[in-house]
Amino acid sequence: MIALSLIGIGTGNPDHLTMQARRAMNEADLILLPRKGEAKADLLDLRRGICAQVLERPVRVVEFDLPVRATHGDYLEAVNDWHDAIARAWAREIARNLPQGGRLALLVWGDPSLYDSTLRIAARLQDDGMDLKIEVVPGITSIQALTAAHAIALNRLAEPLVVTTGRQLREGGWPTGTNVVVVMLDGGCAFETLEAEGIEIWWGAYLGMEQEALIHGLLSQVGARIVTARKALRERHGWIMDTYLMHRNVNDKTGAGGAS
Amino acid sequence: MIALSLIGIGTGNPDHLTMQARRAMNEADLILLPRKGEAKADLLDLRRGICAQVLERPVRVVEFDLPVRATHGDYLEAVNDWHDAIARAWAREIARNLPQGGRLALLVWGDPSLYDSTLRIAARLQDDGMDLKIEVVPGITSIQALTAAHAIALNRLAEPLVVTTGRQLREGGWPTGTNVVVVMLDGGCAFETLEAEGIEIWWGAYLGMEQEALIHGLLSQVGARIVTARKALRERHGWIMDTYLMHRNVNDKTGAGGAS
Ligand SMILES: C[S@@+](CC[C@H](N)C(=O)[O-])C[C@H]1O[C@@H](n2cnc3c(N)ncnc32)[C@H](O)[C@@H]1O
Ligand SMILES: C[S@@+](CC[C@H](N)C(=O)[O-])C[C@H]1O[C@@H](n2cnc3c(N)ncnc32)[C@H](O)[C@@H]1O
Repeated sequence: MIALSLIGIGTGNPDHLTMQARRAMNEADLILLPRKGEAKADLLDLRRGICAQVLERPVRVVEFDLPVRATHGDYLEAVNDWHDAIARAWAREIARNLPQGGRLALLVWGDPSLYDSTLRIAARLQDDGMDLKIEVVPGITSIQALTAAHAIALNRLAEPLVVTTGRQLREGGWPTGTNVVVVMLDGGCAFETLEAEGIEIWWGAYLGMEQEALIHGLLSQVGARIVTARKALRERHGWIMDTYLMHRNVNDKTGAGGAS
Repeated sequence: MIALSLIGIGTGNPDHLTMQARRAMNEADLILLPRKGEAKADLLDLRRGICAQVLERPVRVVEFDLPVRATHGDYLEAVNDWHDAIARAWAREIARNLPQGGRLALLVWGDPSLYDSTLRIAARLQDDGMDLKIEVVPGITSIQALTAAHAIALNRLAEPLVVTTGRQLREGGWPTGTNVVVVMLDGGCAFETLEAEGIEIWWGAYLGMEQEALIHGLLSQVGARIVTARKALRERHGWIMDTYLMHRNVNDKTGAGGAS
């Protein structure tokens, strides 16, 4: 039997680790760290650093090469194939390093529930007949790292909010029925496709990390600045992860919106 | 000058505290704990317990009576008046306990950005001319406590999600443009107002706490059980906090939904 802990580690700040995460790491027999290639070596270093800082006993830490996602063809199909390949890579490492079973821990970026495929990949192993017991240790998401860095509320008083992807925003425009949108997984700057009038934006990149960058203002005033900063930062560091929150009708002081 | 730390403490499990939260608590000159009356004494005890467990130096911990929200009249107006009253209560405690300024910490349930008014109340003090520097320490939200307890993903692959309130769900029905809804602040069981067909629900009460209760299934099959359990638990404990996640079109295996 494999007891699998999916441990949310936050988005770069080791101090965002919870007590439960520390404990789960120390109780593991094996921690698997994915190697994602040169460009994202920072992220591997960060996970290595967390292990070095947190582990109080000699837990075995093994690195493995994460398969690469195909960038051509249908997006969802490519993602599914990729998850299959990752499941096979895990199975290989488990057979090699925990042949008698035991406690396996995976360090998941942010929280395991939010735009992360680790749970789906683990389900594949169960479907393939592996005796796998899954435990999830929650972690601070990039959304909370964003709102904490800007010291702002996510929602407006008693209002709903939408969390979506750059792709969805680009294809579908501003989601109906909400004045509050969080955008993740945006490979470009999907906010550029919106009518900027009346939108306020709080943008953050490398949240929780040394390189953290924040920009806040009316989209009409800071939109171009974010585009430029994003490009420059991406060139400087070789990779970028960013998230942003937008409020619409920020000048509408009537109704529920104005009450916030 | 008052340096105010709004510290997210998670939703009941002291092990959900982050290292950053522990540190911020220990660096404070004063921690204010709100007394919310008999019914919610559990929650005060929990905060007291966290202080006892986390504090490694003699930080001053002061309890104060939280003003009560009017339950009649317009909802948003009542909330605004209530926030004004809380701001006055804080100002009183600050004048009394930190007359020369210093570091004040408030322990915020879950994360300070999510359906919490602490940031709005702090802004009132700044508007009234108090020299207040605000820092936010993120915490694990009830949403992450819910998904971790059920070991499930929040979103479906590449899809958006909506976080909303019981009131909004009751008044507006299932939000447009999404198959994934999280409901918070539901004083009743707003899911009862939905057409149950094709909806899967993951429900959790007292998440992260000893009393934690979880129910999962098709809404058509477990909806009535949740209503009964919620009533019984509320009577037993004198209060309840619950959150739930719903997926719609769970039998729709075509398109993006099916890919999850
Ligand atoms: C695959 S998702 C994983 C999200 C993660 N599970 C979480 O809880 O935040 C990756 C996306 O999260 C956001 N993200 C993750 N880490 C971030 C960081 N340090 N700064 C800004 N955005 C981040 C970005 O939108 C990125 O495209
Ligand atoms: C005023 S909001 C505060 C939310 C909090 N800031 C957070 O991050 O979760 C209160 C609502 O959060 C949810 N909630 C908070 N704690 C909870 C718990 N321990 N179990 C279930 N739901 C909880 C419930 O929906 C409740 O009505």
